[in-house]
Amino acid sequence: MTISANNPQLKSWIEVSENSDFPIQNLPFGIFSNYSTSNKRVGVALGNKVIDLYQLFELGYLKDLPFTGGDFEAEFLNSMMAHGKLATRALRNRISELFSEGNNELKSIQTHLEQILFDQVDCEMHLPVRIGDYTDFYSSEQHAYNVGCLFRDPKNALLPNWKHIPVGYHGRSSSIVISGTNFHRPKGQTIPDPEQPPVFGPCKLLDFELEMSFITYEGKELGDSITTSEADDYIFGMCLFNDWSARDIQKWEYVPLGPFLAKNFASHVSPWIVTLDALEPFRTSGPVQEPKVLPYLEYSGNKHIDINLEVSICPENSSETIVSKSNYKHMYWNMNQQLAHHTVNGCNIKCGDMMASGTISGNDESAYGSMLELTWRGTKPIKMNDGSERKFIQDGDTVTIRGYAKKDGIRVGFGEVNAKILPAK
Amino acid sequence: MTISANNPQLKSWIEVSENSDFPIQNLPFGIFSNYSTSNKRVGVALGNKVIDLYQLFELGYLKDLPFTGGDFEAEFLNSMMAHGKLATRALRNRISELFSEGNNELKSIQTHLEQILFDQVDCEMHLPVRIGDYTDFYSSEQHAYNVGCLFRDPKNALLPNWKHIPVGYHGRSSSIVISGTNFHRPKGQTIPDPEQPPVFGPCKLLDFELEMSFITYEGKELGDSITTSEADDYIFGMCLFNDWSARDIQKWEYVPLGPFLAKNFASHVSPWIVTLDALEPFRTSGPVQEPKVLPYLEYSGNKHIDINLEVSICPENSSETIVSKSNYKHMYWNMNQQLAHHTVNGCNIKCGDMMASGTISGNDESAYGSMLELTWRGTKPIKMNDGSERKFIQDGDTVTIRGYAKKDGIRVGFGEVNAKILPAK
Repeated sequence: MTISANNPQLKSWIEVSENSDFPIQNLPFGIFSNYSTSNKRVGVALGNKVIDLYQLFELGYLKDLPFTGGDFEAEFLNSMMAHGKLATRALRNRISELFSEGNNELKSIQTHLEQILFDQVDCEMHLPVRIGDYTDFYSSEQHAYNVGCLFRDPKNALLPNWKHIPVGYHGRSSSIVISGTNFHRPKGQTIPDPEQPPVFGPCKLLDFELEMSFITYEGKELGDSITTSEADDYIFGMCLFNDWSARDIQKWEYVPLGPFLAKNFASHVSPWIVTLDALEPFRTSGPVQEPKVLPYLEYSGNKHIDINLEVSICPENSSETIVSKSNYKHMYWNMNQQLAHHTVNGCNIKCGDMMASGTISGNDESAYGSMLELTWRGTKPIKMNDGSERKFIQDGDTVTIRGYAKKDGIRVGFGEVNAKILPAK
Repeated sequence: MTISANNPQLKSWIEVSENSDFPIQNLPFGIFSNYSTSNKRVGVALGNKVIDLYQLFELGYLKDLPFTGGDFEAEFLNSMMAHGKLATRALRNRISELFSEGNNELKSIQTHLEQILFDQVDCEMHLPVRIGDYTDFYSSEQHAYNVGCLFRDPKNALLPNWKHIPVGYHGRSSSIVISGTNFHRPKGQTIPDPEQPPVFGPCKLLDFELEMSFITYEGKELGDSITTSEADDYIFGMCLFNDWSARDIQKWEYVPLGPFLAKNFASHVSPWIVTLDALEPFRTSGPVQEPKVLPYLEYSGNKHIDINLEVSICPENSSETIVSKSNYKHMYWNMNQQLAHHTVNGCNIKCGDMMASGTISGNDESAYGSMLELTWRGTKPIKMNDGSERKFIQDGDTVTIRGYAKKDGIRVGFGEVNAKILPAK
C-alpha cells in the first residue's frame, strides 16, 4: 500500500520543528474550538498549527471529495469517519498535497491562510469521537504476568486462556474524557481487613494504566465477523489512553464479573487521532505466538507497531519525573487479532467505537505500565526528582503519557494525555 | 406522589380488552413506523392501538408542553426523554386526559383520529432508545446462589462481596436489538477437555437469561453521585430484557475480567418502555438485607416492584411451553441501590443508558430464570409440550419473555420480547 502522504521526502511550507510530533507525514485529526469559531470543528495538526477543515472545505479546497460542511463543523469526528477509510485517506492525502513544499494553491492566498490556520496554543481541544462502545483488552504478556504474580501464583501467573484468547472486557464510554480534564479521587467500597466488613471512603490505591486505543469505522452487520486480514480497513486511527484504576476498589469488587467502579470514574484520551495510515511506516513484527493460535486469530505481515511510550508524574508545584518508558510493540496480541476476536461471535462494531490495548508493559522493570507493577504493589516506592516517593498516585499529582513513532528521521507523534488528581469530594 | 394517569377509576373511550397489557393506566412509549409514516415516530400503546405522538403534536393536542415536533418524529426516544422526568410525566398525564372517557377534545374529530391512531398489528416496532452505555447487574440472590452452587461450592455459593455490593459489569450496547430480530447461533472458543487445547465452533450451550432493564434520564456531571432517594428521578422506565448467554464460551473466557463474547452477540429488548410512573402502584417491599448495607446503599420506602414474568420456548413448527414463572420482586438489590452504587465513584450516566437486572430467579425451581438453572446444567432436561426435551436452546427455538403487573383489577404489562435462534453461519 502506497499512501502519498507518508512520503518521507515531503516537507511542508509550514514550519515544523525537528522534535514536533506533527510533521506533514502525520496529519492527525481532532476536534477543536477557539476564539473565532462558534461551534466545534474538525482540525488537523501540522507543526504547532491547527488546520481548520471546515474553512478549508468552505473555501473550496476539498472539492472532489465526498464530504459536506457538516462533516467538519461537528461535535465529533464520527460524521467525517462515516464516509469510510478510502474517503478519509483521500482527505489526508489532499491535505498533505496542499501543505507540501512547492504547492502554492493555498500558500499564496494570505486572506485564506488567516481563516484556515490557527496556533495550537489558541485552540481548545475536545473529546474527538462520540464513543459508542468501549472495550478494554489485556494484551501485554508482561502485564498479565506481573498481575498474575502479584495476585495469584508466580508459577502459574498467566491464566490458562491467556495465550489462546485476546482477553478483553467491556468498559464505560460515558466517563472517557479529553486530556486535561482534572478529576476527583473516586470513592468506593474496599475491604482493608478480610475478616471485617467492607468500608466506604476515598480510594487509597489510585493508579494509572499506560494504554493506547484504536477507533473503528462502521463495521459489518450483527452476525458477521471481521477477519484479521480485513481488520485494517475498519480501524481509523489511534490515540494515547490512560485507564485510571482504583486498585483497592477493584480487588473487592471484581470477582466474578470483572472490573466496574474501579475503572469507570474516568479514562483519559489524547486529543489527536493519528491515522493507521500514518502509522504504516512503523509496522514491526510481533512475538512468536506459542502455543499456536486458532485459525481465526492467525495473521500475516507485520501487524505490530513500534511506538515509544512514556509516563511521567508531576507532583503539585514541582517538576515531573519519568516513571515508565515502554513501547506499543510489546503487545502479544495485535489490533487485527483483537478485532477478529471481538467480532468472531457476530458482535457488531460501529463507527466511533474505541478499543484499548490494556496496560502496555515491557520486559524491563522500567517499562512497566502501572504503579502496581512499577512499585510491585507498593513494596518498592519510586523516588521522584523532588525527593518525595510514590507507591501510588497522590492528590495534586499530574500524570502524563506521551508517545511517538520514529524511523528514517520522521517522527510521528501523539502529543500527550494528562490529568491532575484532585482530592476526593 | 399522585400521578393523575394512574387513577384506577380511569377508562378510555378506546376499547381495551380485559387482558390487554396496555390499559389507559399504562401508556408506554416506543418507536414505530408503518405504511403512513416515512420516518420513525414516538408512539404510545393503548389497547391494541398505537397513538402517533408526532401527529398528536402537529394537530395541536400537546400545547403547553415543552416538546417540539422533532422530539416525536425521531429515531429514538432520547430527544423526548432529554426534557426530563417532569416533562415526560406531564406528557403521559396529558395523553391520559385526552383518551379518558368523558373527554371529547379528540374523540369527536374523526379526521384527526384517522391520522393519530393505528392498529398495532400494522406497525413495525424499532429499538426504542439510542443506548449509550449498557450495564448488567447480578442482583437476584437465588440466581447468584444457583450459579455459585453449579460452578463453585454449595457451602460458599455466594461470594464474599455479594451482599455488600450490587455487583454489576459493563456490557455491549451495539448488539442490543429489538424483539423479533432473529439471530444466528454464535461461534467461539470453548474448551471441552481442559487437558486439550481449546476448539472453535458453534456454541453448544446457548441460554436465555430472564431479565428486566431500566432506562435513565441524563444524570449528573462526572464526579457527582446519585443517592438512593434521588434515583427515581433519573429512571424513565423499564422493559423486558433477554440477556442471551453462551455458557461454554463464557466458562472459558470469563476469568479474570468477566463475560465478553459469551454475551455480546445479541441481547433483546421489548419495544414498549413502561414508565416508572406507571409502575408506582405496584411497588412492594424488598428482602431484609443482612448484613446491613453501607449507608450509601440504604433506602427508604418500597422500592421493589411486583411484576409477574414468564419465559416460554417454542420449537420450530410447534407450540410453546412455559419453562419459567418468576417475578421482578425477587431482586435482592433494587434499582435505587443499583444506581446509587453505579454513581458512588463519580461515574456519570447519560440519557438513554440501559441497566439490566441480571437473571431474575425466584426461590422455587420453577422460577429460575435460565436454562442453566432450570435444567441444573443440563442434568435435569425440561419436557416440552411436543414431547421433545431441552437442556439448552436449540436452533429453530423461539424464546419469549412476557411480563405484567396487576393490582386492584388494573393490569400494566410489558408485551413481550422474543427471538428465534437460527443455525450458526
